[in-house]
Amino acid sequence: MTISAYQQDSDSMQIEWHGGETSVFSYFWLRDNARDPISFDRQSHQRELFTAMVPADIAPCEVKLRDDGRFICIKWPDLENFVDYASDFLLYYSSPTVVTDLTEPKLWDKSSITNNLISIEYEHALTQSGTSEFLKKIADYGFVLVKHCPCEKAAVARIAKNIGYIRKTIFGGLWEFEANETMADSAYTPKELRPHTDSTYSLDAPGLQILLCVDYNAVGGESVMVDGFRVAKQLLQDDPELYSLVSKIEVTGIYKGDGSNLQASRPILRHDIAGRIVQVTFNNYDRATTRLAEPQMTHLYSAIRYLDRLFNNPNYQWRHQLKPGEMLVFDNWRILHGRGGFEGKRKMAGAYINREDFLSALREHDLTETTVKTA
Amino acid sequence: MTISAYQQDSDSMQIEWHGGETSVFSYFWLRDNARDPISFDRQSHQRELFTAMVPADIAPCEVKLRDDGRFICIKWPDLENFVDYASDFLLYYSSPTVVTDLTEPKLWDKSSITNNLISIEYEHALTQSGTSEFLKKIADYGFVLVKHCPCEKAAVARIAKNIGYIRKTIFGGLWEFEANETMADSAYTPKELRPHTDSTYSLDAPGLQILLCVDYNAVGGESVMVDGFRVAKQLLQDDPELYSLVSKIEVTGIYKGDGSNLQASRPILRHDIAGRIVQVTFNNYDRATTRLAEPQMTHLYSAIRYLDRLFNNPNYQWRHQLKPGEMLVFDNWRILHGRGGFEGKRKMAGAYINREDFLSALREHDLTETTVKTA
Repeated sequence: MTISAYQQDSDSMQIEWHGGETSVFSYFWLRDNARDPISFDRQSHQRELFTAMVPADIAPCEVKLRDDGRFICIKWPDLENFVDYASDFLLYYSSPTVVTDLTEPKLWDKSSITNNLISIEYEHALTQSGTSEFLKKIADYGFVLVKHCPCEKAAVARIAKNIGYIRKTIFGGLWEFEANETMADSAYTPKELRPHTDSTYSLDAPGLQILLCVDYNAVGGESVMVDGFRVAKQLLQDDPELYSLVSKIEVTGIYKGDGSNLQASRPILRHDIAGRIVQVTFNNYDRATTRLAEPQMTHLYSAIRYLDRLFNNPNYQWRHQLKPGEMLVFDNWRILHGRGGFEGKRKMAGAYINREDFLSALREHDLTETTVKTA
Repeated sequence: MTISAYQQDSDSMQIEWHGGETSVFSYFWLRDNARDPISFDRQSHQRELFTAMVPADIAPCEVKLRDDGRFICIKWPDLENFVDYASDFLLYYSSPTVVTDLTEPKLWDKSSITNNLISIEYEHALTQSGTSEFLKKIADYGFVLVKHCPCEKAAVARIAKNIGYIRKTIFGGLWEFEANETMADSAYTPKELRPHTDSTYSLDAPGLQILLCVDYNAVGGESVMVDGFRVAKQLLQDDPELYSLVSKIEVTGIYKGDGSNLQASRPILRHDIAGRIVQVTFNNYDRATTRLAEPQMTHLYSAIRYLDRLFNNPNYQWRHQLKPGEMLVFDNWRILHGRGGFEGKRKMAGAYINREDFLSALREHDLTETTVKTA
């Protein structure tokens, strides 16, 4: 849309769009977001302007339209040349605050999830269009089942590096293990692992987790995925007051051992500034011993009782026996994962990817959408 | 302190300590935090209990004191053996909520900071007691100047691995560079870098940053450190309303380039649930173009004007020309760093350490303190 006219006020200007709509921009905002070579470095996409030193009452010396209103050009007192503002740029920022973010997740439970919705072939997942499909499935359903992978940890690395890079943790990066009773963490024993999210003790819990079945010659060990957002929605419906409470009570996760003592605290259900749920954090194994004041302690236990019973209810689960060459990639901020107890040999490989790198990949593949967020 | 008596109620018990004080514990909390071999794995420090399946009205079958009140022993209906609770354990959790956390930071400005307070010798910093001193200086002042380091990036790795491990980012891990105009980011050019925090576009901004001067044959390039908490305190004093506003307005940082599009949003001044300041996030270079609703947009600009002028005011700065073999290690959640423009050769090496690993090191070195936090 192009600009048909403008009207200057003392501290702002009104833009009139072809079509008749109008938008107001403060002079300070316009100066702050000037993208001329002195104020903005196009190579690094960084603001060079020392915003704090711009006078609060800055105003243009001169304003003009160019190219049939495709640009509005402003001469600022501190710059020699006119600064061009593209009409599309201004249109994009014409209302408060535009952010690019995740698309609406497709919540699921046992009755609605099918293997077809979440499956993809390994070789396809590594192509350009396949990568988009792979990412879209995770954005929609929170996980993807990658089929016919090479049975070696290099396949995990290839999938990870196709999106971002492997996150480093106290455990290292890319890993491979067989069930082994001598390891410290419960993830290394063949007992049942009830659904949980990983690294609740980490300030930035891993965004994506990759789990590849390298070898399987056992009885049991079914993988379990639960849509944490779906269960949260159920709580909201059944007990809105408890939902609201548990969105505020911080729970501490802890990892202690091998010279580390990691701790992090956040609510089980975490929301962004616009009130949308962004993260489910739940790991009863790693929940630290803490004492909250009443009635918070009782509320927290009520929430754990409600949520963990649903997490363990097959009606909310996708269950699948991973075969060698099958890989799960899931959103650790949304999906709880678990597995049944087993006896025999089961060799897995895996890695984590940071949340920010997953979101970056979504942006690079045009899989985010523009939404208005309230400040 | 030992237990002299106890009194059972329907859903809780009151413990009487030798000395006469009393504390109340709910049965559910006691059952949830039982540390017997069935409920708790001492090797992994993980809770094995399926808390959600414990009846909300659980109550002991039998209770008794042992070893002159050093233990209270409870027989639960779902366990065969008595569970022993040490009196010290219960005393620690006798009031809501005890957390171990950072000690009170020692705020500083130009008039109060001295090189003596923040200097340490490289070889000493690698000893057990030296590591504690090194960490304590960072906890107190937000940074440390390590002297007489080997002039090679291996020194950065040794310091990093002495605390945790090197964080991986889109730029890699351990790095070394000379000023070079062809690199994308402003950190690679010899222009002045005004004080800022790093990776405002990262969901979990690096906790510690390590910067080693490997070679210096130039004019200019002074390093600048600013205590963000000190400046925040000044704002609180001068304009409490603006302080409160800027603690709520989320600012978006962005990194765009090399196939990445990283974004993160948080207030410039971030506080924990108890209202203590935990993080300063400020980088005018990487601040994304966003439009907030009014009056937030105007408030944000007012805050930027106030804060960035103080960040750039020498009265709030520690300034020092790093010589080869000198290393700065600073808390990127508190300290803003910058450097003057320069001409000539300047070779630096560096790395990041995660915040959680820094906090873990503080805990492992007994440099945290126990505080009561309100839920």
